[in-house]
Amino acid sequence: MKLSTDSAAIQNVLTRRVDRVVGDLAARLASGKQLRIKLGMDPTSPDLHLGHAMQLRKLREFQDMGHKIVLIIGDYTAMIGDPSGKSKTRPPLTKKEVDANAKTYLAQAGKILDIKKVEVHKNSEWFSKLKFLDVLALTTKFTVARMIERDDFEKRLAAGTDVHMHELLYPMMQAYDSVMLKADVEIGGTDQMFNILAGRELQKKSGMAEQCCMFLGPTLVGTDGVKKMSKSLGNYVGITDAPDEMFGKVMTVPDALLRDWFSLTTDVMPAEVDALLAAGKNPRDAKVRLAREIITQYHSAKAADAAEARFVQVFKNKEVPDDVPTIALKAGQTSLIAILVEAKLAASNGEARRLIAEGGVRVAGEVQKDIAATVVVGKTPILIQKGKRHFVNIQSE
Amino acid sequence: MKLSTDSAAIQNVLTRRVDRVVGDLAARLASGKQLRIKLGMDPTSPDLHLGHAMQLRKLREFQDMGHKIVLIIGDYTAMIGDPSGKSKTRPPLTKKEVDANAKTYLAQAGKILDIKKVEVHKNSEWFSKLKFLDVLALTTKFTVARMIERDDFEKRLAAGTDVHMHELLYPMMQAYDSVMLKADVEIGGTDQMFNILAGRELQKKSGMAEQCCMFLGPTLVGTDGVKKMSKSLGNYVGITDAPDEMFGKVMTVPDALLRDWFSLTTDVMPAEVDALLAAGKNPRDAKVRLAREIITQYHSAKAADAAEARFVQVFKNKEVPDDVPTIALKAGQTSLIAILVEAKLAASNGEARRLIAEGGVRVAGEVQKDIAATVVVGKTPILIQKGKRHFVNIQSE
Repeated sequence: MKLSTDSAAIQNVLTRRVDRVVGDLAARLASGKQLRIKLGMDPTSPDLHLGHAMQLRKLREFQDMGHKIVLIIGDYTAMIGDPSGKSKTRPPLTKKEVDANAKTYLAQAGKILDIKKVEVHKNSEWFSKLKFLDVLALTTKFTVARMIERDDFEKRLAAGTDVHMHELLYPMMQAYDSVMLKADVEIGGTDQMFNILAGRELQKKSGMAEQCCMFLGPTLVGTDGVKKMSKSLGNYVGITDAPDEMFGKVMTVPDALLRDWFSLTTDVMPAEVDALLAAGKNPRDAKVRLAREIITQYHSAKAADAAEARFVQVFKNKEVPDDVPTIALKAGQTSLIAILVEAKLAASNGEARRLIAEGGVRVAGEVQKDIAATVVVGKTPILIQKGKRHFVNIQSE
Repeated sequence: MKLSTDSAAIQNVLTRRVDRVVGDLAARLASGKQLRIKLGMDPTSPDLHLGHAMQLRKLREFQDMGHKIVLIIGDYTAMIGDPSGKSKTRPPLTKKEVDANAKTYLAQAGKILDIKKVEVHKNSEWFSKLKFLDVLALTTKFTVARMIERDDFEKRLAAGTDVHMHELLYPMMQAYDSVMLKADVEIGGTDQMFNILAGRELQKKSGMAEQCCMFLGPTLVGTDGVKKMSKSLGNYVGITDAPDEMFGKVMTVPDALLRDWFSLTTDVMPAEVDALLAAGKNPRDAKVRLAREIITQYHSAKAADAAEARFVQVFKNKEVPDDVPTIALKAGQTSLIAILVEAKLAASNGEARRLIAEGGVRVAGEVQKDIAATVVVGKTPILIQKGKRHFVNIQSE
């Protein structure tokens, strides 16, 4: 493939959804030399969401220009987990689990990247060969002051929160990855600034060309409208979510975030976004458009049509409020009675039975009068309605 | 050998030349169980001086009570040296150099310890087997705050002086030595407090009995009267120094330090020391006694006699001042003329020749009138005198 040195394309890759760039990336892109663009992935939670997609989409832009994408699977540290006990969500993983997660990750990344052209490495390739002495030699290249000046370390130390010694080694490891891969560019979120700059530093100390650092931003805030999108916070849209699930989640995005979501998760042109969000326009229409764009990216335009149709069929003219709470239940076939009790729409099985028999319960918009009725709880939220004004979405845990 | 649980012996080992003890050492010594007493040695500079001897003599006390002495040769870190560039005196050592230094060290330690009964380990025995992952697992047991609260780290960080990452790993390594050796007691100077306590901590985290920590003190100040005895400062008496060298060096100890020197380097009883240092006594006599004690320990009483005799012969009634400067010259046979010029006793070769011919120069107390005379420069200082009032000691570099 011929390398693109088109100045408009370069300008675009350097600025769109980019917070800042460190290094002479513009010049390197214009040089006509194929660059090695590095992205590290954490194989502890392989389910990618739209936050991760920002990075992968940026890689795709580089890939389309003819550059080499290099993905690093951080399997070596995943095997140690987080033994400080701070994060219960990060137990050590076995090699088998890491491999399975990496496979899942790559399959998902393949929705965005041309994965056949991607170079993939696990960092155990080099770290498993290091002896203690090699590690010591590596640590001589970093000063303690430099490491703890990392914003979150400094804050945690000031607050008296434990920072464990191994955490100081992680940036060094990420930096060493860049040395081993001879990365020309590393990309990541602004929260990765320290680690990515450490790679630049270590490359210099190792006598090689320093990688350019590209920090993407702004940060994609999740559907809760408050925090950075994260699987553990449950405020995410997964790139493998079913179309209906995507549609439902996007419809819950707070109006104030719509502009950012259009900008960060779609390629809809700013002028068009302005029109969609103009005063007097119904934000719901903008959300439908946003949902369609996202579903089209990760499934297809046809899937977007179908999801929209189902959504309209279920919700239109039902006066469903915007803030329907979601309740997580065990996946699988569940009696409607149990669901009403668990969702606190009924105080007892007896009340639930009476409500159903009286025709006061709707499932996905349809009245359900069979007290023996069951609902299959899955990833797609299902709307349960009691009377005119009580709604919950149920969904598998 | 039967273990001594004699309470006077226990009291003595616990208090004499001891700054403080952490842990239930008194109870353990009284238990009748043989204890493992650990001392780490740095194989980068194998020449032991009286400062090191304080530690070895304490070990000898334990050994005489029947306990097991365990010496650790810190060969693993010696192979990395100090690549931070702070210390030019600590280049990385090869395995061969480490082995040679360790051999020298043990030969010297054998002047104090019954070396056949000592258990000796190199810490490469366990560190060379550690993988990076093991190191990471180990680092999870230490917090950054704990490490940098070490007095010298904190001061250096506050002063903006570089502390390199590997320096943070050294205390962890010393602590791991204690785990691997199942040490019951570790001894060291008060400057080793943090590292030795880290061993106690890591043993606890590893589910084993915590070692007791014995910190020796006060610190032995060198012959300069100012700084801790240290080879690199040149203010030391080496335990392999020749008797005359020991004698000469001890005679330069400032009067104010004599009490400490008696207490820290000899077993002369306090009452006797009081008598030697009483008002009106000549400090020179106390120094002669101190020198004799030290030479007797590391050579023999006969060697002490001979050294004293030579000293008296050379110096008596010569009105040699106490503060004769020492000048280091290239070892080997050297012309007296060159020596006078290098020692700045003569401004030129011509002046030196004239001084000698006129009988104004003494070598080791004897007038030397031969302008072709040579002197063999070696480790033993040789007194060169010009006229009545100008003296220098010359010695090999």
